[in-house]
Amino acid sequence: MNLILCESSEVDAHGVVTLTGTRAAHVRGVLHAGPGDTVRIGVVDGAKGQGEILALDEGRVVLRTGLVAGLAAGLDATVPALPEVDLLLALPRPKVLRRLWAQLAAIGVGRIVLTNASRVERHYFDTHVLEESTYRPLLIEGLQQAGDTRLPRVSIHRQLRILVEDELDALSGDGARLVAHPGGHRSPLEAARESQWRRVLLAIGPEGGWNDFELDLLTRHGFEIVSLGPRILRTDTACVALLALLHEARRLPTAP
Amino acid sequence: MNLILCESSEVDAHGVVTLTGTRAAHVRGVLHAGPGDTVRIGVVDGAKGQGEILALDEGRVVLRTGLVAGLAAGLDATVPALPEVDLLLALPRPKVLRRLWAQLAAIGVGRIVLTNASRVERHYFDTHVLEESTYRPLLIEGLQQAGDTRLPRVSIHRQLRILVEDELDALSGDGARLVAHPGGHRSPLEAARESQWRRVLLAIGPEGGWNDFELDLLTRHGFEIVSLGPRILRTDTACVALLALLHEARRLPTAP
Repeated sequence: MNLILCESSEVDAHGVVTLTGTRAAHVRGVLHAGPGDTVRIGVVDGAKGQGEILALDEGRVVLRTGLVAGLAAGLDATVPALPEVDLLLALPRPKVLRRLWAQLAAIGVGRIVLTNASRVERHYFDTHVLEESTYRPLLIEGLQQAGDTRLPRVSIHRQLRILVEDELDALSGDGARLVAHPGGHRSPLEAARESQWRRVLLAIGPEGGWNDFELDLLTRHGFEIVSLGPRILRTDTACVALLALLHEARRLPTAP
Repeated sequence: MNLILCESSEVDAHGVVTLTGTRAAHVRGVLHAGPGDTVRIGVVDGAKGQGEILALDEGRVVLRTGLVAGLAAGLDATVPALPEVDLLLALPRPKVLRRLWAQLAAIGVGRIVLTNASRVERHYFDTHVLEESTYRPLLIEGLQQAGDTRLPRVSIHRQLRILVEDELDALSGDGARLVAHPGGHRSPLEAARESQWRRVLLAIGPEGGWNDFELDLLTRHGFEIVSLGPRILRTDTACVALLALLHEARRLPTAP
């Protein structure tokens, strides 16, 4: 936990936050912080900054923060930028998706668009891993690891064709579109660096890949095929690899 | 399983291989292949190519392959190149390492050098996840996923200083050296593309990072500090992200 996240409802009008449970235990047991010390704290989907410990006891830590604008002079807080990459992901097996939530939030995605596809098994949709009460804490875990506050927006779509034809422009319309497909020749790095995109939407298929119809649908709607080369990666490995690549392409000082 | 791997001892002098168990079940149940069909097959640390099914029954598949040089004309087999990246990794928690083996082999590493570090807990070394009988099948699982045959070499080192000062040149001496450390400014992509390296050795620290002594030791022995930016990633996420980046940097058509 490199940043302690709280909900906006936990911050009072004076910027004071009271932590309990695992977050309080973290401040005491891992950070070994005491009154007067500062710790990094943020609000889900809001600002992050320093919090000064006013008091702590067995199960409770009280912090003064700058998380309410204009208060607590000297404890600045700023809102991190929204990650510039969105992910369109064919729904993976529940076990894989459970592992992915925190990793996706840690690497940084603005939006996670989950979709059906021909090679997605129908029963994958009948899982509590798709319930917000399950995935939200996992996303927050990833944000706390990475030091970010911006919770990825999640939407779940049962029909790829309707999603791509009717809904996608509203969800993620104003950027480059890339679809990962083994056997493509172009590197995502190259594609990302050459385009003058502000945002990018990356599509990753199910185990077994997109079928021809789906690939055609995607390319007709502006997706360029990219590939990590001849090696075929598992969905979760591919997500991490590709998202990291796209973020890093943005960080390079100049385009070639 | 995008490539079926067998041991060299399973290939007879005529290039004929008999598969049993899960590999035989995969040919029948997933590939739905029958006599006369070909499947992709390789030998651990050796060649890969096509195998033609001669016979199959309930628990057994017999294949004619080109995996013995000069035999089985028309069934060519070639040995994949060794991945150009080696990994020096501070020993992660056993649970994390167990998940990592297959992913590392799938992304492609020539060598996995596991080491102690100040922030590695001692009991991490007392795990069966470090026994070859545990990790070899996991590495092979990753190779079968990626379609590679080259098994990463694994070595385990109890003292980072002895490793870096006395042993590392012999293990991975002839390439660029990068150490990932949060807060560094230089992108691994940039560093990798600018150097004229043939191979690269990437060092990734424990949860909590390298300490100052370790970072100094590494930089004094040729490691350049690189970072994925301000986000702090879990060890396993960082491994996948960084290895993918280094491989991709090699695939780009021209250096800037």
